[in-house]
Amino acid sequence: MRDFLPEDVRRREHVVDTVERVYQRYGFEPLETPALENIETLTGKYGEEGNKLIFKVLRRGEHEASGETDLALRYDLTVPLARVIAEHRGKLPRFFKRYQIQPVWRADRPARGRFREFYQCDVDAIGSRSMVVEVEVCSAVSDVLMELGFDDFVIRVNHRAVLAGLLETSGVAPSQQTDALIVLDKRDKIGREGVARELVSRGIEEMIARRLVAAFDELGHHEVVFQGMSGEDANLAKLTRLDSLLSQHEQGTRGLSELREIFTLSGPTSAGHRLHLDASLARGLSYYTGAIMEINVPDLAGSLGGGGRYDGLIGMFLGEQIPACGFSLGLERILVVMTERKMFPPGIEAAAAEVLVTLFEGEPIQDTLKLAGELRGAGLRVDVYPEPDRLGKQLKYASATRARFVVVVGSDERAAGQVTLKNMQTGDQQRVARADIARFISTVNLHGKT
Amino acid sequence: MRDFLPEDVRRREHVVDTVERVYQRYGFEPLETPALENIETLTGKYGEEGNKLIFKVLRRGEHEASGETDLALRYDLTVPLARVIAEHRGKLPRFFKRYQIQPVWRADRPARGRFREFYQCDVDAIGSRSMVVEVEVCSAVSDVLMELGFDDFVIRVNHRAVLAGLLETSGVAPSQQTDALIVLDKRDKIGREGVARELVSRGIEEMIARRLVAAFDELGHHEVVFQGMSGEDANLAKLTRLDSLLSQHEQGTRGLSELREIFTLSGPTSAGHRLHLDASLARGLSYYTGAIMEINVPDLAGSLGGGGRYDGLIGMFLGEQIPACGFSLGLERILVVMTERKMFPPGIEAAAAEVLVTLFEGEPIQDTLKLAGELRGAGLRVDVYPEPDRLGKQLKYASATRARFVVVVGSDERAAGQVTLKNMQTGDQQRVARADIARFISTVNLHGKT
Repeated sequence: MRDFLPEDVRRREHVVDTVERVYQRYGFEPLETPALENIETLTGKYGEEGNKLIFKVLRRGEHEASGETDLALRYDLTVPLARVIAEHRGKLPRFFKRYQIQPVWRADRPARGRFREFYQCDVDAIGSRSMVVEVEVCSAVSDVLMELGFDDFVIRVNHRAVLAGLLETSGVAPSQQTDALIVLDKRDKIGREGVARELVSRGIEEMIARRLVAAFDELGHHEVVFQGMSGEDANLAKLTRLDSLLSQHEQGTRGLSELREIFTLSGPTSAGHRLHLDASLARGLSYYTGAIMEINVPDLAGSLGGGGRYDGLIGMFLGEQIPACGFSLGLERILVVMTERKMFPPGIEAAAAEVLVTLFEGEPIQDTLKLAGELRGAGLRVDVYPEPDRLGKQLKYASATRARFVVVVGSDERAAGQVTLKNMQTGDQQRVARADIARFISTVNLHGKT
Repeated sequence: MRDFLPEDVRRREHVVDTVERVYQRYGFEPLETPALENIETLTGKYGEEGNKLIFKVLRRGEHEASGETDLALRYDLTVPLARVIAEHRGKLPRFFKRYQIQPVWRADRPARGRFREFYQCDVDAIGSRSMVVEVEVCSAVSDVLMELGFDDFVIRVNHRAVLAGLLETSGVAPSQQTDALIVLDKRDKIGREGVARELVSRGIEEMIARRLVAAFDELGHHEVVFQGMSGEDANLAKLTRLDSLLSQHEQGTRGLSELREIFTLSGPTSAGHRLHLDASLARGLSYYTGAIMEINVPDLAGSLGGGGRYDGLIGMFLGEQIPACGFSLGLERILVVMTERKMFPPGIEAAAAEVLVTLFEGEPIQDTLKLAGELRGAGLRVDVYPEPDRLGKQLKYASATRARFVVVVGSDERAAGQVTLKNMQTGDQQRVARADIARFISTVNLHGKT
C-alpha cells in the first residue's frame, strides 16, 4: 500500500479521466459502493485462494474482544455490483450498464504492478445474454488503451464451456476439473513438463494429463501451428479444430458458437483485430460462466485487465437468474507500463499553481491577499508565500513547486497599481498593470515564451 | 454505508469537482493515501472516544485465528497527512500545500448527514506558523461553498490557547480541562443547567462550574449582548472582553493576538465577513494547538466542516516539530443540505447516453455496431440496445435511461445511408444522413428543441 504524492496523483488522474470518458461514450453510467461489505457477501465467491486474501474487520464495541469479524474490505467490484443489482433491482433500467472505478484490497504478496490496495476500472452490462455485450465491453476497453497510447495489446478470448468440454472429453472427472485448471494455468511459470507432473501428482492419470497438456498447448498461446496466419485466420482455424474435438459435447459446441459470434460482430469495432482465441485461458475467479477475456502486452507478465460473462452470480443474491458480462482494467498495471514506456503527455507533472505571489517584511499583507484574490477571480491558480522572507528563498520555493510566474509587488509598484512579473522558465521579468496580469499570463500560455 | 447509484454519483461529482477546482485555484496539490494504516499510526491521536470508533483489521494467514489486529481504516485525512510528511519530507517543498478528497471510516451511530463511511475534502498547508495560512484555508472553503450556491454560512473561530486561558483563569485544574471541554461542548444538546450539573458531577466545584458556563455563554454563540452589532464589531467587542479576562494569561493573550490577525487579514477575502468569534467552540479532536474553525448553516445541527492549527501532530511521527493548519469539508453534510434545498443545477440527473441505437430481428448487427462506432468517434455518448426487440420496448428503455435521441435504421434507410432520428423530448422524428447525425444532435444541443 502506497502514498500518492501530487505527481503520482496527476498521472493516475490522466488514466482515470480517459477511462471514464471512454466508458461514458459507450453509454455506461457511474456506480460507487462502500469499501466495507458484510463478510458473508464476499466469502465463497472467489474460490478457496481468494477467501484467504480477504481483509476482515473486527466487530466493534463490546464484541471487539471476541475476535469475531463481521465486515470485509471489497475484494473486487463485480460481487458488490451483483449485490447492488439484487438490492436495487426496481430502481434500475432493464439493462443496467455501469462503470465503477474504485480501490479493492487483497492480502496478496506484492509484485511489479501488484499491490494490496489497487484500483479496478470496471465496466459491466447487466440483463442481456446477447454477445453484443461481450463485443461492446471488449471494444470499450480497446478504445481506452488506444486513447492512452497502447498499440501492441492483444485480447485473449476463451469460453468456460469450451474449457469444460476440453477437460471432459480428455477424460478428467468433473470433481478434478477445478484442480486441473489451477495446474494448467501455471503453464507459463512451470512449463509443459511441470504441468504434466503436477496433474499426475493431483491424481490425474498420466495419459490423460499428457493429452490435456498437448491439447492446451496446441490451442493456447503456446501453439506454433497457427503462428504464420493472420489473427482472424488463426481464430477460424482454431475454431474448426475445436469443433471437431468438441463435436460430441453440447455445452462446448454452444460455447464455440458464442465465440464465433463474438469474433464476427467485433469485426468493425476497435477490438476486432485484437481478439485471439486462446483455449488455454482459464481466469482464476470462479464466478465466470461463458466467454472469458484477458488483455496482455509483451512487457508485463500479468495482464492489464480481464473479464467475462457471469450469468450465475447475481442469482446467488437475488434467487432469480440475471445474465451479466463485464471487463475490469487494472489501473496500477496500466500505470506501471505507461511509466516504463514514458507514455505520459509532456507537462503532466506541472505545478498546480500558475502564479506565486511573494510576501516581504513590512508589506501590507492584506493587500497581497487581495491581489491573490483578484488573480483567482480571473481564473488563475495562485499560491501565496505564507510568510515574509528573502526573495531568493521565495524564488527557490517557486522552482520547487514549478510555479510558472512569480509576482513581486514593491512599494513603488504598489503605488502605481503595477506588479513585477517574473517568468520562471525564461527568467524574463517585466512590469504589468494589476488588472492585466491574467490576460498577460494567458497570452504566454498560448504563445509559449514571452 | 451506502451504494451510490448513477444519479447519486453525479451529484457527488458536481460537489467534488467544485471543491477540487477551488482548492487548485489556491495552489493546493492533490495527495492520496491508502485506506489502511498501521494501527499504531492511528491510536492515541483522536482522544479516547475516537479510539473506540476506529475500524480494526484482523491479521491474515496463520495469525488470523489469534484475533489480533495490525491495520486500521483511515479515521480522518489529517493523521495520514502527518505520517506522509514525516515519511516523504525530503521530496516535498518547504511549504507543502495539499488537498485530499477520500473516504474515512468511523464506527459511529448513523444520523442525518452522518455515515460510517464518508468523504472528507481536506485542504492543509504545512510548514508555516503564519496566520496567512489560516486566512487562506478559510477563504478557500468559503469560495467552495459560495460556488456551490451557499450564501448563509458562518465560520465560527476560536483558539485553543484562549480556551485553555478561560478554563485556567476560571479555576479548573489542568487535569480536569479535557473533561470540562467535553461537557461544555454539549451546551446545544443539554442546555446551560445540564452543563453546570454535569461539570459538578465530574468533580468541578459548583462556583467554578457556574462561572465557566456564564463565561462560555457570554462569549460563545449563545451570547445575547453582541447580537445587534455587525459581525466585525461583535468580534472586536468580544476580543476586548477576552483581553481583559485573559490579561494575566500569557498563552491566552498570544491566542487573542493570533485571532485578531486572522480577522484583520481576512478582511479582503471571501471569508472576511463570515468569521464569528465563538469562545465556546472546542472541536473534538485532540491534536489542535492554535486557531480552530467550524462552518455552520442554520438548517443543519452538525457542521459542514471544521479545521484548525495542529503544530504538534507531525512531530509525533517525525520528532522534529513542523507547524501545520488545515480545513476539512464534509461531503455528505454538504450533499444533505444541497439536496434538501434543491441546489443542484438542472439536468444533473441527465443520462450518460445522448443516443440509443436500436436493434431489430434480422438486422445486420455488425452494421449497427459500426454505426455506434462512427457516432462515438464523432464525440457522442452512445448506448446500443443489446438484443433484437420490439420498438416499444426499446423506446421504453430509452425513456428509463433518459437517452435524448433514438436512432432507428430500417432496411430502406440503410440502403440510402440514412437513419431515422427520434427526439425523445419532443417526440419529433426525421431522416438524417448517417454522416450528419452528430452535427444534427449538437445543433439541437445548442438550440434546445428541434
